[in-house]
Amino acid sequence: MSEIPYKTYLTENELPECWYNVRADMKTKPAPLLNPATRQPMTPTELGKVFCDELVAQELDNDTPQIPIPRPVREFYRMYRPSPLVRAYFLEKALGTPAHLYYKFEGNNTSGSHKLNSAIAQAYYAKKQGLKGVTTETGAGQWGTALSMACAFFGLDCRVFMVKCSYEQKPFRREVMRTYGANVTPSPSDTTAVGRKILADFPGTTGSLGCAISEAVEAACTNEGYRYVLGSVLSQVLLHQSVIGLETQLALRKLGVKADVIIGCAGGGSNLGGLISPFMGEKLRGEADYRIIAVEPASCPSFTRGRYAYDFCDTGNICPLAKMYTIGSRFIPSPSHAGGLRFHGMSSILSELYDEGLMEAVSVEQTAVFKAAEMFARTEGILPAPESSHAILGAVNEALACKESGREENIVFGLTGTGYFDLTAYQSFNDGTMVDQIPTDAEIEAALAKLP
Amino acid sequence: MSEIPYKTYLTENELPECWYNVRADMKTKPAPLLNPATRQPMTPTELGKVFCDELVAQELDNDTPQIPIPRPVREFYRMYRPSPLVRAYFLEKALGTPAHLYYKFEGNNTSGSHKLNSAIAQAYYAKKQGLKGVTTETGAGQWGTALSMACAFFGLDCRVFMVKCSYEQKPFRREVMRTYGANVTPSPSDTTAVGRKILADFPGTTGSLGCAISEAVEAACTNEGYRYVLGSVLSQVLLHQSVIGLETQLALRKLGVKADVIIGCAGGGSNLGGLISPFMGEKLRGEADYRIIAVEPASCPSFTRGRYAYDFCDTGNICPLAKMYTIGSRFIPSPSHAGGLRFHGMSSILSELYDEGLMEAVSVEQTAVFKAAEMFARTEGILPAPESSHAILGAVNEALACKESGREENIVFGLTGTGYFDLTAYQSFNDGTMVDQIPTDAEIEAALAKLP
Repeated sequence: MSEIPYKTYLTENELPECWYNVRADMKTKPAPLLNPATRQPMTPTELGKVFCDELVAQELDNDTPQIPIPRPVREFYRMYRPSPLVRAYFLEKALGTPAHLYYKFEGNNTSGSHKLNSAIAQAYYAKKQGLKGVTTETGAGQWGTALSMACAFFGLDCRVFMVKCSYEQKPFRREVMRTYGANVTPSPSDTTAVGRKILADFPGTTGSLGCAISEAVEAACTNEGYRYVLGSVLSQVLLHQSVIGLETQLALRKLGVKADVIIGCAGGGSNLGGLISPFMGEKLRGEADYRIIAVEPASCPSFTRGRYAYDFCDTGNICPLAKMYTIGSRFIPSPSHAGGLRFHGMSSILSELYDEGLMEAVSVEQTAVFKAAEMFARTEGILPAPESSHAILGAVNEALACKESGREENIVFGLTGTGYFDLTAYQSFNDGTMVDQIPTDAEIEAALAKLP
Repeated sequence: MSEIPYKTYLTENELPECWYNVRADMKTKPAPLLNPATRQPMTPTELGKVFCDELVAQELDNDTPQIPIPRPVREFYRMYRPSPLVRAYFLEKALGTPAHLYYKFEGNNTSGSHKLNSAIAQAYYAKKQGLKGVTTETGAGQWGTALSMACAFFGLDCRVFMVKCSYEQKPFRREVMRTYGANVTPSPSDTTAVGRKILADFPGTTGSLGCAISEAVEAACTNEGYRYVLGSVLSQVLLHQSVIGLETQLALRKLGVKADVIIGCAGGGSNLGGLISPFMGEKLRGEADYRIIAVEPASCPSFTRGRYAYDFCDTGNICPLAKMYTIGSRFIPSPSHAGGLRFHGMSSILSELYDEGLMEAVSVEQTAVFKAAEMFARTEGILPAPESSHAILGAVNEALACKESGREENIVFGLTGTGYFDLTAYQSFNDGTMVDQIPTDAEIEAALAKLP
């Protein structure tokens, strides 16, 4: 069909030796996290109460471009990486586009997504620090699954606070975590003070991500030998996820292909930031130019309809303030099926890059997203996650624009994961009962009015 | 860690050009299928009423060693093949064995198993014959999923009769098939005469595989432009699945590794037959020797406790008779969680090879299987299907024997798929409620007494 194979695999020896820290090449650094009480930048000591020491150092490091990937993390990466860069020949054919579509597929591991790339790094540093375990929260369950796999590997205790309604509605995700030995607690629970208070105030509540974060942070701070870990938003997470972009960059180089457009779905920014970092680095250093497009859900449009301001990262407002594109920590997004994209804010790094005009953003509606997902599944043979399908739709729209104009662009997008635990969403699409729920201007204004 | 990588991927150009037909090298050919009415070998004309013409030819071909893989099938294979041969370094370390463990992983596609290898071939021949569509049955759902993906690719109608209790208990499998455009009917249904009769005789029945087969065959024979397709047992299926073994053989050759033992799980024989075919060929031609071990569930032990005799392939006794190791088509296995291994008989090819002493068989209990599955998940990072986990346990036992004796064997096993749709089984294991149900001698004797 062509000299370019369907799937390009790097060898294991070509796995990056270092993560790439895009902050080092940014002229304006992302704004620091602020202590919610003092409104002063969080100090390493303050952060060290919640996060592992080495991760605090990575969080605050705006200068070192290359940060070595520890050997045990690289060994673990070799189990499921390098991930393939796939030429979507069959999708191109179905679209009748002159564009060339490539996707970096992160779903070929049991966590089902890219989340494992950062989970294993965070678990490693916790182990290295001699900790007993880590705590976290999970909503949809991808992050919790990835973390439980990482903790099983290093023999760390893993305590996951899972939003109670997800715990009950997604028993399968819960069982994967349990199989990896994680302790999964429905949140709110009576194992923490904040959980007990919420249960007393709101008996019968099915919980929220904000509440689960609060419980996980409390559990980390009050149990000797535990720290809290997070799967998105933070700069350290984008750093670990840069392995996605570095592999993509090398694979394209080996194929002799120059990307014109790079597209990723955007929730908290972990995948998008990881995919684009090295390309953004080239752009920041003036070595190459790329169009970079974030695709976010119209139901939770932080880039396209939010404000660039300091806001809380959690609904409970106990975590540090981050400067980011946000639609307000009090904003409650409609129950979109792309749970991984329902965060009100956006990584500080990506927010700064977007604010400087270095990348674009579009928002899309979920029925259109699932239509693209169905087309992708039928042509490319992979059932995509709802989150990933936002990037598919972005790429399809770009490919159709190329068809219109006759441009033979190289479009690269991130396919973050598989939809095997999202069949309830597919069912509502198959049944024709899925609807689009887009916030009104008044709703967004009301949420933004409550910014701190 | 070593010069041997974790994952060995062949290039797409190294994909086999032909399937390998092990029957060509067998001195005693597998016994022919018999017409249940006349007890005479089924003729091509008789078989052609149920199966596609080219598949009938493949079913009856005991002589041609190399059968070319059609170009469109090879193109489809390139989307998800060659599949990796993985060195299980972390499992070896956990076991403390001097043995080297390798597994051929067939789970990196949305059907979640090796079933897609034959589904795409069968769909291709149906399309080539100008048919409108195909019918089939599915129990656990792997085969139905694979077939729906294959039919979506070629634009064929796909009608799947899904055992009613599975249809209701496994809504997620059903939704994957629907996403690929398949028409999924709970069986028994009122869409066929046999279904209506069963519903009249047994109102409220939740169905059985035998009943679903009967409905699928009737639907194929009574609808113009349809044929019936099957995912295991048949010689044509083992032929298509030989792509697994051919890739394994080539990858080992490139690594300079000589396998000592080859292990696969055994239900109807599709995966095991595919994996071992080329190695068995070497053995039959006197070019090399291997120990070959089938691992079957103790709850459905056709090799280890069955009889080599002619029997019906379906519970309803409407299909041709096959000579095979069987525990009787009337045998109802206990509700083991490895649905894919609950078939009462075994491929005629494998049955003949086993009868000649060219391979071994062991049976294992499911609680031990899930213990091995858990260990594998935690060390190798892949949540295995219950079926595949039988092969894992077989390999673990062999590796522990090597530890005992100090032998540095190369053990190769087939990891047929992932367990993402089998979390109910994992839950019962995690909860400690899983039990082993092994048929008594009296139960097996009773079933064997009813052989035709």
